[in-house]
Order: sequence, then structure tokens, then C-alpha cells
Amino acid sequence: MSVSVFEHPFLSQLLGEDAIAAQFDASAEIRAMLRFEAALAAAQAAEGLIPKAAGDAIGKVCEALEPDFDALGQATLRDGLCVPELIRQLRMAVAPGHAAHVHFGATSQDVIDTALVLRLKTVLEILTGRLGELERRLEGLGDRFGGNRLMAHTRMQQALPIRVADKITAWRRPIAGLAQTAGPLGDRVLRLQLGGPVGTLEGMGDKAQAVGDRMAADLGLAFDGCWHTDRQALVELAGWFSLLTGALGKIGKDVTLMAQNEVGAIALSGGGGSSAMAHKNNPVAAEILVTLAGFNATLIPGMHSTLVHENERSGSAWTLEWMLLPQMAVTAGAALATAKRLIDSIDNIGTDTQGGDGP
Amino acid sequence: MSVSVFEHPFLSQLLGEDAIAAQFDASAEIRAMLRFEAALAAAQAAEGLIPKAAGDAIGKVCEALEPDFDALGQATLRDGLCVPELIRQLRMAVAPGHAAHVHFGATSQDVIDTALVLRLKTVLEILTGRLGELERRLEGLGDRFGGNRLMAHTRMQQALPIRVADKITAWRRPIAGLAQTAGPLGDRVLRLQLGGPVGTLEGMGDKAQAVGDRMAADLGLAFDGCWHTDRQALVELAGWFSLLTGALGKIGKDVTLMAQNEVGAIALSGGGGSSAMAHKNNPVAAEILVTLAGFNATLIPGMHSTLVHENERSGSAWTLEWMLLPQMAVTAGAALATAKRLIDSIDNIGTDTQGGDGP
Amino acid sequence: MSVSVFEHPFLSQLLGEDAIAAQFDASAEIRAMLRFEAALAAAQAAEGLIPKAAGDAIGKVCEALEPDFDALGQATLRDGLCVPELIRQLRMAVAPGHAAHVHFGATSQDVIDTALVLRLKTVLEILTGRLGELERRLEGLGDRFGGNRLMAHTRMQQALPIRVADKITAWRRPIAGLAQTAGPLGDRVLRLQLGGPVGTLEGMGDKAQAVGDRMAADLGLAFDGCWHTDRQALVELAGWFSLLTGALGKIGKDVTLMAQNEVGAIALSGGGGSSAMAHKNNPVAAEILVTLAGFNATLIPGMHSTLVHENERSGSAWTLEWMLLPQMAVTAGAALATAKRLIDSIDNIGTDTQGGDGP
Amino acid sequence: MSVSVFEHPFLSQLLGEDAIAAQFDASAEIRAMLRFEAALAAAQAAEGLIPKAAGDAIGKVCEALEPDFDALGQATLRDGLCVPELIRQLRMAVAPGHAAHVHFGATSQDVIDTALVLRLKTVLEILTGRLGELERRLEGLGDRFGGNRLMAHTRMQQALPIRVADKITAWRRPIAGLAQTAGPLGDRVLRLQLGGPVGTLEGMGDKAQAVGDRMAADLGLAFDGCWHTDRQALVELAGWFSLLTGALGKIGKDVTLMAQNEVGAIALSGGGGSSAMAHKNNPVAAEILVTLAGFNATLIPGMHSTLVHENERSGSAWTLEWMLLPQMAVTAGAALATAKRLIDSIDNIGTDTQGGDGP
Repeated sequence: MSVSVFEHPFLSQLLGEDAIAAQFDASAEIRAMLRFEAALAAAQAAEGLIPKAAGDAIGKVCEALEPDFDALGQATLRDGLCVPELIRQLRMAVAPGHAAHVHFGATSQDVIDTALVLRLKTVLEILTGRLGELERRLEGLGDRFGGNRLMAHTRMQQALPIRVADKITAWRRPIAGLAQTAGPLGDRVLRLQLGGPVGTLEGMGDKAQAVGDRMAADLGLAFDGCWHTDRQALVELAGWFSLLTGALGKIGKDVTLMAQNEVGAIALSGGGGSSAMAHKNNPVAAEILVTLAGFNATLIPGMHSTLVHENERSGSAWTLEWMLLPQMAVTAGAALATAKRLIDSIDNIGTDTQGGDGP
Repeated sequence: MSVSVFEHPFLSQLLGEDAIAAQFDASAEIRAMLRFEAALAAAQAAEGLIPKAAGDAIGKVCEALEPDFDALGQATLRDGLCVPELIRQLRMAVAPGHAAHVHFGATSQDVIDTALVLRLKTVLEILTGRLGELERRLEGLGDRFGGNRLMAHTRMQQALPIRVADKITAWRRPIAGLAQTAGPLGDRVLRLQLGGPVGTLEGMGDKAQAVGDRMAADLGLAFDGCWHTDRQALVELAGWFSLLTGALGKIGKDVTLMAQNEVGAIALSGGGGSSAMAHKNNPVAAEILVTLAGFNATLIPGMHSTLVHENERSGSAWTLEWMLLPQMAVTAGAALATAKRLIDSIDNIGTDTQGGDGP
Repeated sequence: MSVSVFEHPFLSQLLGEDAIAAQFDASAEIRAMLRFEAALAAAQAAEGLIPKAAGDAIGKVCEALEPDFDALGQATLRDGLCVPELIRQLRMAVAPGHAAHVHFGATSQDVIDTALVLRLKTVLEILTGRLGELERRLEGLGDRFGGNRLMAHTRMQQALPIRVADKITAWRRPIAGLAQTAGPLGDRVLRLQLGGPVGTLEGMGDKAQAVGDRMAADLGLAFDGCWHTDRQALVELAGWFSLLTGALGKIGKDVTLMAQNEVGAIALSGGGGSSAMAHKNNPVAAEILVTLAGFNATLIPGMHSTLVHENERSGSAWTLEWMLLPQMAVTAGAALATAKRLIDSIDNIGTDTQGGDGP
Repeated sequence: MSVSVFEHPFLSQLLGEDAIAAQFDASAEIRAMLRFEAALAAAQAAEGLIPKAAGDAIGKVCEALEPDFDALGQATLRDGLCVPELIRQLRMAVAPGHAAHVHFGATSQDVIDTALVLRLKTVLEILTGRLGELERRLEGLGDRFGGNRLMAHTRMQQALPIRVADKITAWRRPIAGLAQTAGPLGDRVLRLQLGGPVGTLEGMGDKAQAVGDRMAADLGLAFDGCWHTDRQALVELAGWFSLLTGALGKIGKDVTLMAQNEVGAIALSGGGGSSAMAHKNNPVAAEILVTLAGFNATLIPGMHSTLVHENERSGSAWTLEWMLLPQMAVTAGAALATAKRLIDSIDNIGTDTQGGDGP
């Protein structure tokens, strides 16, 4: 099936990417869920909430378990999520004496939210790494063409001449903004979710905080209490994904305008061909940056709507998050890959006035 | 990969469906594209624009061709769409003398848009069929429980008692509306796209209309001229998908409210279980209907934004359509499947007042 | 105050308009509400549900009443709507013996929804009238410049030459589509809302249908039962407003591209000036068409979200409608006014090839 | 006119507020624009770019000028913004010898963007002040009812009992998040815009930085270069407005669920009345919080779409911002006022278990 472009055999080449997408693969998800369960058992064993032998056994099974995906699918249809069935499989896989110690005091949402955050950590690392690369590429572009002249356009009309360096400065500014906000945002997103059935961790008594602290240290996350109905940081992250695609969409939009035959302010190699017009050299990568910006801008209100959870857990709002956030993350990754491709294809920008043929 | 829930091994069980999704499979898409090329060649042969032998040969190859998907993917990255490469493969597959007659006078957009419409025809048939089934199920629900009493709620407060039949009438009304609008909408959507490179079909001279008429008859579509930059009917269709999920989301919302333990106005069998609370019987199907309504409502503005095409073809706007419309169609299909499941799980609604224990 | 551009003393000149806006003025709204109450009383008197004298008296007071707007405002804060207070004022204004016959069997939603529909009727008449004028203007444009040559652009690159007539045909096509769908849509929207407190009209017994039929005839609407939770037709109307602004936004986008100095495919008189660059001639009206399209596309998902009403009336969803629909209607009106202005400012399109200086 | 609820005589009582709205009044806007021009003239005089006498004269006129609003409106229709006309009026108002020194080296966007930011500073101060008050109110609620028992609900079903304090903790968490992000966000938003016609400030030569620094100090803003096409911080701010309304919408949603007659977990005084059902006590303020959250979530994608500016200034994207951001700010203010009202109306939450009649 290829309902979404991200899974489509051809369109994913154009509109998707692999590294971020890999984080949202079902196998990666299950692996992260099992990391949660292992960390929970280890922390609870260390705190004496479950036997040390149980903690060790659960940890080993979590590393080795190859879940029955068909059963997970059927259970998801029934339960709305796969965790109860995954826990059942996990309990079947440990020695009978340890089964009751699996998932002790936790709830499905703890598993799913923490497993999401663990993968978002990698997502953020990849994206910020690529943003850094993009900055360097844009810097390099400035080194090559920054001194060239270019006609500025305001309100779609010629305004006054600027230098290419001015254009590149404008392109870099929002990217620098993203780099600046990524850190604090990461601090807000990358937090262990641990609340138990209704967010109060009452099953773990006075060991709850210590269990959370141990788990957070183990998983490389922060822990500052249950956030099961507080989706704010995830919505901010979605916003950041869309700010990113917007920043790159602006570059793409400029390039489509500069690359117009009548304008000729940028030269691109390897543009797209047409099935009917052999002379065409379409600025496909630039257009796609605009598309990806439009896609993430489209999805963002759905994320904001998930802020309104009913009481202690909204199945409706939570599930909507699952439909939106992975696509937004992959779109951000795809935009960075496309921007890299676009910049690498630039043969020239503006007019070299050293030779005296300026505008 | 499973970036979108529709391709996720577990979540697709809950949030996806198969029959509509099958229409958006890459293989189905290519098959529809080849139907376009075959119909084009046949019509052009009949009109004497290409040799009859070429028409026959192209038709046969279109039936048999198994395209090289890897090459289509690479070409999509370069060209922004797969058609130039598909045409290249098609030309390679026919006898050399016929190659120049493949795709004569047409352009990529003719192929892609018509191939979309051919599959939307099936999509609409499936969805309207399921709407009819749903209507009958709701009628059956009325037969079983319509005479029961139920407390009406306005603004989240008890208002006055009504009959269950009144509730079901309210549920059925927007579904009848969808059935009413589906026909005229289909007439507007199901039109052959044929315009050639810039929408004027100039390559076909005075045979253009005749070729279009023949193709339309062959493909079971209407033909009223090129609509390459007029995406209105597709946006209307997207709106209809969202009206559909909204109508079912309203049913789902009502059921979640009626099924509250404190309200007890509906009894559901086989609700979802919890990993932490054995007593829970979660109204998962009802919640999911709200989620699916939220998802389609989220996507609709992106479709509206695609109305603003740049000049004779916008790569940016057109590609955004591809990212949105298939997901909206499958969401509509999934909502209908979920609504069926939900209704089938209803054991009771309201209070039987025949026995004298009404509210 | 001027929070919204539509009420802003300067920006409303650019982004608003008067004729549609007048329909959403509070005075017009109250007037329409009183028309509902008068029609209700007249119909109920004719059917013998209330005394004939009461019907007459209520009708007269409804024509003359000048409500206390301050009291309506305070009541709206408390009740979420102004109707209970309006009814109180109305009851105070009729002779004491008739007071109990005011608003008999009806509820606030009947008043508000019908009063909305009455004004939407005028809105649709104005908009379809303006669409017709726009069609004629575009036809006139074709008469003047249709034979000129123009370079077509696909994917932001030069494609092949077309005639200006081809461009205008493309602009007219979605406008024709709007004219085609306006009629059936009006039939679906322009319906009396009459349901009583919970939609069952039980207070009017077996006269309910007759009362509704009489009121509908009186008010120039259809009546086919209560639609209080079925917002489908209103959402379709919002979609149509956005299809309209999208169709005009496409024209605006094309004009901004054609009017680029480097392209020079269109000549506009009276463009906007700059505070810093005296040579600028900004295509402001064309840009604004794109803005208005973006605004309506932005608002449409909120309307779709209102399809999910809780039970027999959702205060939350219904109120959201009030925040969105009037703005969308006025935006449609403003876009039509702007498009008229834009077209009237066109001095030339394309190149006259009669003189031999074609592209 | 009352197209938007914020200007509607009744609905603004329910859905609007005054303090934030006052910042978006046209008079406040013009006043802020004149502050920009005064600060510009003072800084340029200090740096010797214009005569000191001109600087003084311009400053005085900026304080006293009462612009001709009609002329501003007509000019806005022509130019797309009011600044060229405002500058013309300003130049007319100073002595002829100083006229050329008004607005020297600046452009309309400098004026409009800085005038926006000046008012957003006040907006942020008001909102963060109210957030602090809300936190204290919620704390007070915890003091009064925190020890009471309450049934937690997950997925719309009873889960396990919690304390009211747990509920209030969940409500407070996203509000604390908003307080935490407001500071850094303010630092990003509250920056002087100064770029001149194409963002390069070339008219001011080597005094550009010094002029900017002086103006920023004068106006209480930061200055780190021209951000005319970098709308990121404004989009983040819009996101924050929507995170705020979402956080309060979640409280509202919970209250509507808790206040259901069948649930009875919260007692509210002074709820809304019905025109048809005297017994109703509608949780209007709670419903409205959900509405306001829905409204801001609806508007946010339009703001994200404005990130894609064409070249050095997009009239289309920039104008769309003006249609969206003020409404989002006022909605945030209205939500805070409504939340205050809602909390003040709470007579009880949960069950006092001291007396032994817990759940």
C-alpha cells in the first residue's frame, strides 16, 4: 500500500527521506517500548519494588523479544493501542514467576509516550545536525557568489539592487533561529512519561520519584512528573518542524522566482524534465520545498487541537497525534534533504560585477 | 517504513482500511496511467492521428507492461513525477516504429490527473455503497431501539427526554445529505483530463475534441475540456470526504458521551482493554471516529490552498494535492468501516419504557 | 476597536467590503431574529396554537422593537447567546396577556440559526450576482485581448505560447463551476430551523409540521425538519466561499507573476506606491486576492470541526461557527470586489501579433 | 459593522476582551507608527544623518499629529498599506525644510512591523500577568478543594479515584510551561525592524547600526538586524497564543465533562440560562474556553503559511499576517478572562472525604 507519499515507491524518493522515517518504523517503535519496559523493571528492581531476578529476566527478554505483529495488529483494533497485547506477549516470554512484575505500576500511555520521546531524541539530533550542514552550505554559497549583484523584489516588483550575500543572509536568519530554539525545545520534549493508570503513580508508593529518576537517567531523558495530558511540548515540536519547513520553503519560493527564464537570477543544473517539452528545466527541488512547507503548515492545527484532552486521557486526541506528528517530522527531514540537493545544484546566483556586466 | 498510520502494521488495523487504500497503491496508479495511454492511442488511431497498427501495439503493451519501479523512483526525484520515465519505458517496449506515437500530444498532467480520476471513480462507488449500508444499519438500530427513551443533552447538560428514534434521525440526516450530494459531485470530478503541454491540445489539431470524446467514453468519464489548473472539483471532493468523517465523528462523539459510566445510555460489547485497569471497557471505535473526523478536518485547508496554481501548472500546489487527497479518501473509508463496527457492537440504547422503568 | 481587518478603518478599505458585512451587523441580526419570532407567532396563530390577537400583537412588536443592546450584551456573557434576553424584552413589550405566547415551543437555536439563514440568503444573492458580473468582465477582457499571444508557464518555467483567450478560459472555468454549484447549495442551506428545545418540536404537537411549513413560506425558506446538529450545509457553504476566494486567488497569483517587470505580460494602471521607492507600481489588488484566498483556506477546517456536535447541541461547536462563517462570507465578498477592481485596472495582456511583434 | 465577534456588540462580551484589543485599535497602531518615526528621527539626528532641528521638529509633530483617517483608508486601498500616506501627512505637518528628513532611509515595513512589535510588548505583558493571576487562582482552588476525591476518567470511562489536587496539578502544568517559554519568546519577538526598502539599510551608510541601536534603546526593543522576511518569531508567538488557548480549553473541556448532571463532580454558580428550559444551568464559560481553543488552533496554519515570503517582501503573505495575528492575541486574552470567570464560579469540586461520604 502507498496511501501516503512517504511509503510510496516513487513519491517517497521525491517527498520522503529515510533516516527520520526509520524512527517511525513499527519495529523501532516496539524496540523503544521494550527499552521502556526494561528500564522500568531495572529501576523497580533497584528500588526493591520487584525482585532483582525479575528485573534481570525482564531486561533480557526485552532485548530478545520478537513480538507477534499480527496479534499486535488485532489487539490494536480492539484496544486502540498495542500495549496491552505487547505486555501479554512479554509476560508470556518471561518465566511465570516474573510475569506479574512486568509493566508494574505503569500504563500504556507511559510506554507509548516514552517510546515516542526516545525516538524524537534521535529525530532532533538528525535534524539539528542537518541544519548545521545546511548553514555551512549556505555559507559556502555566500563565499562563492556573495559579491554578485542581484535585483531585490518587493511585492513581486523590482525594487533596488542588493548583493547575493544579502539574499543569503535573509535565508540563513530563520535557520539560525531554528538552531537557537532547538536546544530549549529539546529540554522540554525529551522527558520520561511515567504516571501509571491515572497519572499519580500510586502503585509505586514513595518509590515513584526514585523509579522515575533512575529510568530517566537510564534512557537519557529528564523526569519532572507525569505529562500525560500536557501535550504542549509535542505541539511546540510540531510547530518547530513547520517553522523549519517554512524557512526552507521560503528559499524554495525565492529560487522558483529567481529561476524564471525571464528573470534568470539563478542557474540550476539537473532540473526536472517534461514528458511533452524537451526544453524544460523545471526547478523541481525548489518547488518541492514549497510543497513540504505547505504540508506541515496544513498539519499543525490538528496538533494544536490535541491540546484539549478529555479528563485524564483522551483516546481521540492522543490518536490524532499519532496520525500527524510522524508525518511532520519526516517532512522536516525531507525538506532538509531537498534543500541540500537544491543548493548543491546551484551553478550561479546573480551577476558578477567584477567583470563589469552588472545590472 | 510506517510513517503514516495507513501503512503501519498495527495502527492501520485501527485507523486504515484496505479497499480504498488499494486504489492508491502505486501499482494501481501505474495501471490507471497505462489505461490512459492505451485509451489515448486507441482514440488517436480511430481519428487517424496515429497509425492503427501503432494504436493496437501501444494498447497491447499498456496491458502487459511491468514497469521498472526503481527507475521510476529515480526519475521522480529528478522530474518531480514519474511520467516522463514511464513513457520512456513504454516507448522502449513497443516496436521502434511505434515509439513516437506513444503519449502523442499529451502531457504528464493528463496522465496523472486522469489516472487519479479513474481511481476516484472506484473510491466514490465504494464509499457511497458503504454509506447505503450504514443507512440500513442505522435504520435497523431504529427498529430495535427507536421506541426507547433517552435524555437529550444540550450544551453538555440534561435537557428533556426524547426517543432513541429522534437521536437516530439526527445521526442519519447528514448521511442522507452525503448521499444526496455524492451524485452531482461525482459528475464534476469524474472528467477526463486532456490538455497537452499547456492545456490547449494544439498537437491534436481539429481532432482534439473527438479524441477526448472517444477517450472519455472508453474510460467511463466525462470530457468537457482541460481542467489542469482548475482543481475545484477535487477540493469539493476532499470537502465531501471531510463532511463524511464529520458526520460519523458526530455519532462517535455522541456514543462516547452516552457510554460514560455515569450516563449509561448505551451498552457496547467488546470495547477496548487497558494495560493497567482490568475493569475498563473503552469505547475505542467511537473515539476513533472523532479522531478520523479531526484528521480530515485538519487536512482540508491544504487542499483549498492548492486552488491557487501558478500560471499553467504549479508543481508546488499539484504535489501538495498528492500528499493530502489519498489520505483523506482512506480516512473516509476507515471511518465508514469503524462506524459499521461501532453500530454492530451496540447492545442497547436508552431505556425500554414498555416495562415501565423509563427515566 | 479594530481587532479584525473587517472593522479596521483603513484595512477594511483594502480587505473588507460593505454589502455582505451589512448582513452580519448586529442590527441586521436582531432584525432577522424578530422576523423569525413574528413568523412563528403568525403561523401559530393561523394554526390555532396561540390566540390570533397574540399573533397580531407579537408581529407588530417585532417590527417596532428597538432592543436594549447593553442588556443583550450582558445576557450574552451569562447565557452564551442573546436570545433569552431578547425574548424577555419582547415579552415585556407585548401586552401582558400575550407574553406567554411569544417564542412558544421554540428555542434559542431556532431563532439564531434561522436568522443566520435569512441573511445568508441575501449573501448568496449578492455573491452570485457579483460572480455573474465578474464573468461578463472576464468575457470583455477576452473580447479585448483574447487574440493576443502569451507565453504559457508550467512549473514556473516558460512552456509554449498560448493565446490570452486560453488564459482567460482557464480563469473562467472555476467561476462557472461556482455558478453551477451555487443553486443546489442554496437549496441545502436556505432552510428554516425549527426544532424546539431538543429538536422534536413536541410543544407544538401535531401542528408542528404545519407551523414549519407556514413559517418557511413566509420567510422564503424551505422546511424539511430540524437540522440543529446537522451543520453540513453550512460547512459546504463555507467551502464554497473558500472555493470562490481560491478561484480569484488563482487569478491574482497569475497577475502577480505576469506583472513582474521582467515578464511584462500584463499592464496594470494605478498600482500601489511605496514609501521608499517612487518607481514602484505594486500589483496590490492581485496580491490581496492571494491573501483573501489564504484567509478563507485557513478558516475552513474550523468549520469542518463544528460538524462534531455533542449530543443535541454543542455550545462549543456552535459558537465557533459564529467566529468563522461571517468572516468567510465577507472575505468572499471582498475578493469579488477586489477582482473587479483588478480587472478594471488591466490596460493590456499579452502581445498583439497582428502588428507582427509577437513573442 | 460587526463581522468579527470581537467587534460585535453582544458577542464581544462573551468572546472578546478589551485590554488586548485596545492594542490593535487603529489609533494605537498609528500612535506606535509615529513613535517609530520619532525614534528614527531622534536617532538620525543624534548620528548626524539629519539636522538636529529636523529631529526635534519631527519628534514634536509625531506626538501631536492627528492623522486624516479617511485619507489613510483611501491610500490603503491603493497602496496596500497606510504608511506612504501617513508619511505624506507627516511631511505636510512639519516645516517644509524638515519634510525631506521624515522617514529617511526607512520603508513602510519598518514602520508597520516595529509598530506591531511595540504593541505586542504590551500584549505579552498583559497575558503573562494574567497567566500569573490564573496560576494563583488555581493554587487557591487547590487550597480549597485539593484534598477532595474525584473519579479519574481515561478514554471517557471511569478509571480510578484521584484527588482534586491531582486534577489541578494537571491543569497547572501547561500554564507553567507557558510562563517558562514566554520570556525567551519575548526576546525573539521584541526586536526593532529596520531595514530600509530592501533590507540593507544602505541609505544610512555606516550609521545604520548606530541608528538601530539608538532606536532600539529608545523603544525598549532589541536590534539584531533586519528581519523583514523572517516571520519566524511572529509565528512562534501565534503558536504560543494557541498553546495558551489550548491549555485553557483543556480546563474548559474537563469542566464541561465534570459538570454533567450525571457526573456532578463540579458545582458552578451562575451558569447560562435557556430560552426554552428554565432548569438549565449551562457551563457557558467552560464551553467558550473550548471554542476559543478551537479558534486559535484554526488560525495557526495561516500564520505558518506566511513563512514563505516571495523574495524581499511578500504583500500577500504579510497582509495575511494582519488578518490573523490580532485575532489570535485577543482570543488568548479572552480565554484568560473567561478562565478567571470560570474558576471564580466554582463552588465545589469533588467529594469531601473527611466527612466519610467519598466515592
